Amino acid sequence: MAEQKSSWVLMVTAQTPTNIAVIKYWGKRDETLILPINDSISVTLDPSHLCTTTTVAVSPQFTHDRMWLNAKEISLSGGRYQNCLREIRSRASDVEDEKKGIKIAKEDWDNLHFHIASYNNFPTAAGLASSAAGFACLVYSLAKLMNVKEDSGQLSAIARQGSGSACRSLYGGFVKWIMGKDDKGADSIAVQLVDENHWDELVILIAVVSSRQKETSSTSGMRETVETSPLVLHRAKEVVPKRVIEMEEAIKSRDFPAFARLTCSDSNQFHAVCLDTSPPIFYMNDTSHRIISCVEKWNRSEGTPQVAYTFDAGPNAVLIARNRKTAALLLQRLLFYFPPQSDADLSSYIVGDKSILKDAGIQDLKDVEALPPPPEIKDNIPTQKYKGDVSYFICTRPGRGPVLLTDESQALLNPETGLPK
Amino acid sequence: MAEQKSSWVLMVTAQTPTNIAVIKYWGKRDETLILPINDSISVTLDPSHLCTTTTVAVSPQFTHDRMWLNAKEISLSGGRYQNCLREIRSRASDVEDEKKGIKIAKEDWDNLHFHIASYNNFPTAAGLASSAAGFACLVYSLAKLMNVKEDSGQLSAIARQGSGSACRSLYGGFVKWIMGKDDKGADSIAVQLVDENHWDELVILIAVVSSRQKETSSTSGMRETVETSPLVLHRAKEVVPKRVIEMEEAIKSRDFPAFARLTCSDSNQFHAVCLDTSPPIFYMNDTSHRIISCVEKWNRSEGTPQVAYTFDAGPNAVLIARNRKTAALLLQRLLFYFPPQSDADLSSYIVGDKSILKDAGIQDLKDVEALPPPPEIKDNIPTQKYKGDVSYFICTRPGRGPVLLTDESQALLNPETGLPK
Repeated sequence: MAEQKSSWVLMVTAQTPTNIAVIKYWGKRDETLILPINDSISVTLDPSHLCTTTTVAVSPQFTHDRMWLNAKEISLSGGRYQNCLREIRSRASDVEDEKKGIKIAKEDWDNLHFHIASYNNFPTAAGLASSAAGFACLVYSLAKLMNVKEDSGQLSAIARQGSGSACRSLYGGFVKWIMGKDDKGADSIAVQLVDENHWDELVILIAVVSSRQKETSSTSGMRETVETSPLVLHRAKEVVPKRVIEMEEAIKSRDFPAFARLTCSDSNQFHAVCLDTSPPIFYMNDTSHRIISCVEKWNRSEGTPQVAYTFDAGPNAVLIARNRKTAALLLQRLLFYFPPQSDADLSSYIVGDKSILKDAGIQDLKDVEALPPPPEIKDNIPTQKYKGDVSYFICTRPGRGPVLLTDESQALLNPETGLPK
Repeated sequence: MAEQKSSWVLMVTAQTPTNIAVIKYWGKRDETLILPINDSISVTLDPSHLCTTTTVAVSPQFTHDRMWLNAKEISLSGGRYQNCLREIRSRASDVEDEKKGIKIAKEDWDNLHFHIASYNNFPTAAGLASSAAGFACLVYSLAKLMNVKEDSGQLSAIARQGSGSACRSLYGGFVKWIMGKDDKGADSIAVQLVDENHWDELVILIAVVSSRQKETSSTSGMRETVETSPLVLHRAKEVVPKRVIEMEEAIKSRDFPAFARLTCSDSNQFHAVCLDTSPPIFYMNDTSHRIISCVEKWNRSEGTPQVAYTFDAGPNAVLIARNRKTAALLLQRLLFYFPPQSDADLSSYIVGDKSILKDAGIQDLKDVEALPPPPEIKDNIPTQKYKGDVSYFICTRPGRGPVLLTDESQALLNPETGLPK
């Protein structure tokens, strides 16, 4: 390193998706290593609509590790960041950039510091698993920067130590996080079940639900559940293992009815064990309940499920429609119950893949107002609509895993200074 | 009977309390006999505030069994009414009313018909266990009319076949419904744990919560839970038996912290298994959640529980305060969050034992508006109150079991015609 001029900055930029569990992770058997009490299965969401972009840079100029999240500097002193940084550093290899004339030997990494800038293309506070995408992207981009040879499974075990569900964001498609048996967590890794092309008919609509409640963080929530719920271990040991097998089968065979039944039941059971916690934890609110009721009524009236719902640690609904036609019918129903505020702009009320609006035959607010009640509620039309109870909808689909962004213009750090652009 | 003139009417009027479970009954092992999957424990509520009054009359003039509920005639053809009537008729004895010159031999009852009038002193639709008080009162008053020799335990097994929780309304104080083992249900009876004087410090506040949702009936709800919830049998077999033992001990020793912990946990677990049902059942709404949150915060800040909460198959909160002083402090908190509508009359917003208002230092709406935020939320004062989310409050206490009303002016049927007054 001595022979190089000290002004170089070496950077890598990557993009990593978020994911939503269809068989839920709730409860750790090891708090520090983040080892779960059961397997979980997730679907990766299309990064065009929901993702984290992270640039990591290394330079002999840098005096300490620094990080900026959504352009604001944050502390890296937390144990979870430190665990990820330590684990990934310990796996670094020699790196050579011939073009820039940079050579970093394996043993040099211990004396180098990082600058990290991360950006979510969706609201961090909206409860859309930003930490999953964030830690996955941190680990993935650092691994690329440091020429870490480990495969995605081994990287997933590192990302897991940042945020449990982050391990599932290292792959596209459907992903299983195997709980593992090892006390050190070496076998608690994510594996891909099928890639994002396997079941590409699925369309995902997310209802971002307005909430006035301060929510319990999932870290403290799951700790309290494990400590106080008399039902959670029965769930983890007796219920989830069977569901995981059935869910893998449903995904592999693209069996939507089985997939929907398992997804809905497992979401509800996760919220049931939250309620069985002392003090009880409520993540769903009346709006969440209304969305479930809308989907359940429709599914029942059709005789077979059209849509699956799942809710994480917050009131937002993630709705998985069996195909695009169903998604359009779903959007009509949702807009009937939850029209935008009168002054809202439809194009900021439906974000992501906006072409779903056209499929649903909706061009402007007048079309929303003209929506008829869904036929399945014809004898029980609500006297009231729930304007304002949904902040906005995101239309997306299953998506790919992490990718490197080689176009330097997409980097979040200045290639000369290593500071945020 | 032949020698009597045929115009006589023999009547009995009784009053029976409602009850609220502190260890919940949810799930039957036999739908027809109404045999539960676990023991349950309830507290009987003071009949001065919540009760059913029933007059039963018999006369050779009556051509068929008829019933009026809250002055409106209803059908007795349902299996539950028929089961109760058949069981109680089969236990009838000779009856003689010397004053009126009436003699009914045991064997005559099979050829006689009843008129039954029943009245709840609280809104039937408010989800306050009106069927429990109703069936208990029906069975109790018919047993008195027909000189049935069976004790309260045996009568409870008959009332149970009308509405499961009705069996617990045959006693005052704290009552246990023993699930029993017999296939025919002979040992599925209620027993009194302690009478209403044993723990007379307790004060009960019921928040009747406004609801726009149509609720699942408890009959179909518990059937669906037993058929679909993977958690409910674990609850019934592994969790409830221990809780019943602990709850009996807490009641006998008047251990309020243990009582509150068990009551709240069991209410939450009952709602958890409802949520674990397919499709999920929601009885609590955002208002219910806010009341729980208010109580949990206060209990935590005091270091020991001041108030226990429990919710049945609806959004209403039943709050049990350790004593009168605590109940007054609770009412202040509840009125802070849930003030009456501006045009409301305070005396129709707090019903039952209204003297609690004086204890809480509240005379009029101005006193409600002047209530300070509870000290335990001093750093987190809500920006918004929830006016209109509670319909009204009922203040009551543990109360006595069924009684005969001997004053004929309290009868609901005309002593000459046997028709509603």
